[in-house]
Amino acid sequence: MTDEAETSSDEAPRSAKNWIIGDPLPTEKLEGQLLPKHLALPIFASDPLSSVAYAPQELLMILLLGGLAFLSFAPWVAAAVVLLLVVVVLSYRQLIKAYPSGGGDYEVASKNLGEKAGVVVAAALLVDYILTVAVSVASGVDNIISALPGLNPWRVEIAVGFVVLLAAINLRGVREASKAFAIPTYLFIGSIGFMLVVALIRTALGDAPTAESASWTVQGEQLTQAAFILLILRSFASGCAALTGVEAISNGVQAFRRPKIQNAQKTLVAMGSIAIILFSGLTIVALISGVHYAETACDLVGFTDCATQPQRSLIAQIAAATFGNNSIPFFIIQAATAAVLLLAANTAFNGFPLLGSVLAQDGYAPKALATRGDRLIYSNGVLALSAVAIVLLIGAQANVTALIQLYIIGVFISFTLGQSGMIRHWIRLIRENVEPRGPLVRSLLINSLGALMTGSVLIIVTITKFTHGAWIVFVVMLVLIMLMIGVNRYYRDVDREIEPDATTVFGSTGDHAVVLVGRLSKPVLKALDYAIAARHESIEAVHASIDDGASEKLERQWAEHNIKVPLNIIASPYRDISMPLIKYIKKHREEHGAEVVTVYLPEYIVGHWWENFLHNHKARRIRHKLLLVHGVVVALVPWLLDSSDLIYGRRSRPLPGQDRRGEPIRPPVRAPKAPAVRRR
Amino acid sequence: MTDEAETSSDEAPRSAKNWIIGDPLPTEKLEGQLLPKHLALPIFASDPLSSVAYAPQELLMILLLGGLAFLSFAPWVAAAVVLLLVVVVLSYRQLIKAYPSGGGDYEVASKNLGEKAGVVVAAALLVDYILTVAVSVASGVDNIISALPGLNPWRVEIAVGFVVLLAAINLRGVREASKAFAIPTYLFIGSIGFMLVVALIRTALGDAPTAESASWTVQGEQLTQAAFILLILRSFASGCAALTGVEAISNGVQAFRRPKIQNAQKTLVAMGSIAIILFSGLTIVALISGVHYAETACDLVGFTDCATQPQRSLIAQIAAATFGNNSIPFFIIQAATAAVLLLAANTAFNGFPLLGSVLAQDGYAPKALATRGDRLIYSNGVLALSAVAIVLLIGAQANVTALIQLYIIGVFISFTLGQSGMIRHWIRLIRENVEPRGPLVRSLLINSLGALMTGSVLIIVTITKFTHGAWIVFVVMLVLIMLMIGVNRYYRDVDREIEPDATTVFGSTGDHAVVLVGRLSKPVLKALDYAIAARHESIEAVHASIDDGASEKLERQWAEHNIKVPLNIIASPYRDISMPLIKYIKKHREEHGAEVVTVYLPEYIVGHWWENFLHNHKARRIRHKLLLVHGVVVALVPWLLDSSDLIYGRRSRPLPGQDRRGEPIRPPVRAPKAPAVRRR
Repeated sequence: MTDEAETSSDEAPRSAKNWIIGDPLPTEKLEGQLLPKHLALPIFASDPLSSVAYAPQELLMILLLGGLAFLSFAPWVAAAVVLLLVVVVLSYRQLIKAYPSGGGDYEVASKNLGEKAGVVVAAALLVDYILTVAVSVASGVDNIISALPGLNPWRVEIAVGFVVLLAAINLRGVREASKAFAIPTYLFIGSIGFMLVVALIRTALGDAPTAESASWTVQGEQLTQAAFILLILRSFASGCAALTGVEAISNGVQAFRRPKIQNAQKTLVAMGSIAIILFSGLTIVALISGVHYAETACDLVGFTDCATQPQRSLIAQIAAATFGNNSIPFFIIQAATAAVLLLAANTAFNGFPLLGSVLAQDGYAPKALATRGDRLIYSNGVLALSAVAIVLLIGAQANVTALIQLYIIGVFISFTLGQSGMIRHWIRLIRENVEPRGPLVRSLLINSLGALMTGSVLIIVTITKFTHGAWIVFVVMLVLIMLMIGVNRYYRDVDREIEPDATTVFGSTGDHAVVLVGRLSKPVLKALDYAIAARHESIEAVHASIDDGASEKLERQWAEHNIKVPLNIIASPYRDISMPLIKYIKKHREEHGAEVVTVYLPEYIVGHWWENFLHNHKARRIRHKLLLVHGVVVALVPWLLDSSDLIYGRRSRPLPGQDRRGEPIRPPVRAPKAPAVRRR
Repeated sequence: MTDEAETSSDEAPRSAKNWIIGDPLPTEKLEGQLLPKHLALPIFASDPLSSVAYAPQELLMILLLGGLAFLSFAPWVAAAVVLLLVVVVLSYRQLIKAYPSGGGDYEVASKNLGEKAGVVVAAALLVDYILTVAVSVASGVDNIISALPGLNPWRVEIAVGFVVLLAAINLRGVREASKAFAIPTYLFIGSIGFMLVVALIRTALGDAPTAESASWTVQGEQLTQAAFILLILRSFASGCAALTGVEAISNGVQAFRRPKIQNAQKTLVAMGSIAIILFSGLTIVALISGVHYAETACDLVGFTDCATQPQRSLIAQIAAATFGNNSIPFFIIQAATAAVLLLAANTAFNGFPLLGSVLAQDGYAPKALATRGDRLIYSNGVLALSAVAIVLLIGAQANVTALIQLYIIGVFISFTLGQSGMIRHWIRLIRENVEPRGPLVRSLLINSLGALMTGSVLIIVTITKFTHGAWIVFVVMLVLIMLMIGVNRYYRDVDREIEPDATTVFGSTGDHAVVLVGRLSKPVLKALDYAIAARHESIEAVHASIDDGASEKLERQWAEHNIKVPLNIIASPYRDISMPLIKYIKKHREEHGAEVVTVYLPEYIVGHWWENFLHNHKARRIRHKLLLVHGVVVALVPWLLDSSDLIYGRRSRPLPGQDRRGEPIRPPVRAPKAPAVRRR
């Protein structure tokens, strides 16, 4: 047992596994994988940019609950979202510089607000990754159905299918293909940008596009003043979905080329600018073209086919109004939107195990997760993430609106705690009289504004949505937090337990070997041979007698083969091997002093997974029980079955001693090299 | 790895497991568990006797497909069944004497007809056990619903519930309570016998009981002559359900008190006689009282409530007609019938793992199954049996008629092959001129008649029911047969592979020890201490460096603790431990000759199952890879974590050397006992 990271990658022979997942990379090769800005932007931006595909739609939808008149508030609400986006981008720009190691909000919260805040952020981020998959896939499917309404009855099935596809791609290992990710993201930015320009030019020329839903109205509710304010706040909160994913770059600073911090900051600002342009543009053009979007299609008065036809996404309606329904540009925009949303879902598959490894290094998750590049563990992470996302998609019937509220809670918990951590960071620096003071105060103000605004959104969403499913997020987070803290406390206790201290006594003596013999076979002879080679002070073979006939046969064979190691046969009244053996060892240690007793067990090495059903059960149980006995070491002597040749290319499996053929001839089995009796 | 049976039973400390499943029994105590005849009868007879609860009903039902007139054939068909029952009982009486070891049909077929026939019987018996559960539970529930018709809508749910209950009881371990099984069986025999006597007396007195269905008629089909004969044959085949379970005693001869064979034979004849009396009596009284039973309730013309009310079982109708509906004797009879049927289902839970252990001993099933008393494997058997039975019950909607055809196929395959094997057995004895010859010829005739009749039933059922689900039995059996033969061939190949032969070279030399060190901890120090105690020819500590800082710290600590074993640090460019270590070992063996290399690995022993998620992952992977390297022995040095104290009562876990406190004081860790460098 060692404590460093270890991968399960075999180098030679090149196995089927390597063929599937690619060769392992040595540590120094990682530098060659660093990203230039023009690749980093699309890779990190698919998540934050894709969120503008649903944020304006959700913002308008909530406002429309109050009736068409409420649309007049839309520019103000959108402006608030843009302001928040600016603040958050500036805030993360500072976070990147202050904490460039890639720990993001988790690191900031841990270092400045203490362990518990860090764990809360970690739990929020784990929930976020799941919801990134669910929300992005749901929105992607929504845009596909907007282009191909005939697929509407299979909305949930298609969404689940995409999650399965993403899981399969990630299990196959897609990270090497990251460059291909640039294309859909740039296509999305370009095509949406072009659409907005065309729509605005047409408006300037007096030929403003008109959405299909422009003529449909919504039955507004009669609102009290409190409800009125609440509705505006809820609309703002939903629009804040545009901010999801902004933190991605702060978690990936180390993936940038040098100078890492400057490059990451520039990419963040570029991404923020593009997000603001797309978000504002889409909101403005949606208002110009009269897009009306309701919680369910049949809330739209005038939409006669609402029972059979899907309500098309905001982007689809604008694209249809601008370029003509079912025109080629319309399909390009829908395809690019769906593609960038699926890419965004894919980022979660990369981020989830990465966060797991950071948590494992800090002792909040099983150490096995810290093993970078361990595909087995990574696979389990992918499967877990997919499974939970599928459950959510089915539970919410792939409805973006239902999922987005859960999503925003997780995102804004980490935003708020990250920003609060940054406030503490700046206050500490100011208190330490770090110069120049001006920028520090400015930074403090930016982060304070950010914390205030993101905290407000968090409170609004929690209050308005707690009973509508948001409680699930809190329950899941609470469980995750308790698990992480439990794991941490456990590792801390174990570390304390195994730390060498002044009372550690050293110096065991005595050296006795026991070779457990069932019936006389090559594996047993090999174990015996190796035990003899190890020149223990004393050695004996022990056989637990269950069947008298078999025991007598063994004694006969033992004599025939002229084996000099004494064979002791012990009774086994309970048809059990381990208990009589353990009693025998304990008795030996009472009689001969507390010697270290090495028990030799042959272990079959098999070639196929199914062979494990046919071997080693008893050996494993005996091993587990022996390891509980004072002073016992279990020595496993492998025996490679022929079937293992297929897998490990070990056709030349040596018989004992065969390695040294060509050396002076060894005596055969009937005359072992030396009388190996007790040498005391 | 040894080849004898081994149980996982811990003796001391008495664990929670023992409390649940009872203490293990030593081999010699088994004698004390042997059964007197008056207990053996109910235990083995619940299966065969319970089948008279459904056999007459199925016999009459098939006949009624041809219309009421066909009931006149019923006495003849029933007589044929009774004749077959007599022949089969006589046949098994002989089988018990010839093969008293308890192998039953499987042993007879294997020894006389060859391996393939034996495997076919084994597969048929495995299928039988599953169907015993399904049919008995379905019929038991049918009788419960006959008494309490309000339960009819939950027929399938109740059946599944009973299977779950039986599984739970068996997982808890009910075998010690076998005596309690006597009560329902005797109650069943007594109450049904009493009912038949009362009914026949009433008939003799001119007051014959009249069943509720006596006035209902059945719309007979127009039949061709071929169809007419087929219907009679099908009716006979369904009546043959009465024979299921007759073979049970032949599998349990060893459970009888001495003289085993005579006692088993007497019990078999007693059971056969009771079965014949109950079967004939129920058929006669059913005909007297005019019980009409159809495949579905609404086939009965005159049964107006057929859509909502269940068709009551034949026994329930007779009981109601004889004692009055809902009278106390009626409920007693229904309760006894249901209880004995559930007991019959329970016998399968005992027989299934027993057959598995016989198959494992013969090398047709994984050796782990041969471990008598291994509760883990037994539990898996119980769970598998229950799961398949539940699937069948749901698939057949707990319909006895649908399940019974599958059941008869399996039962009659083993009957036919067993009888055919007995024919070969007698022919061989006759050819060997064993005297006296008369009884041998008579035995041969009995078994020939048995084989002919059971073979005919098998053919009839197969032909008439193949497309109605019986093909499932054949497919399942084919898969089981292929699996068993595959397992057998595999073990045979392995046995040949590990058999010591003249070319077995022996005599490894050289003895080098490697202690794998991650960071300096007590478990590592214990491994080092034990490695030193084993006095290998040469010893070294090896550390795979993943993190330069950690490696430097280790080197510093190594020097501080003044450990004399040389520490070699090897580079690990792939963040992996096992590959650099393996390369290092291979290089060592090239340089120093092909020494046996013992690699010491600390292994954490944990107290709770969940701790396994947090430990030993890397150690396990390293171990698996090291075991593939030529000349390597892996020595596991256990380290019991404090949590394991809770489980194993090892609060006094020793530090290295602590065992010998009171002996002369050992030097502390900073000065190990001896310079342990290469002694070459």
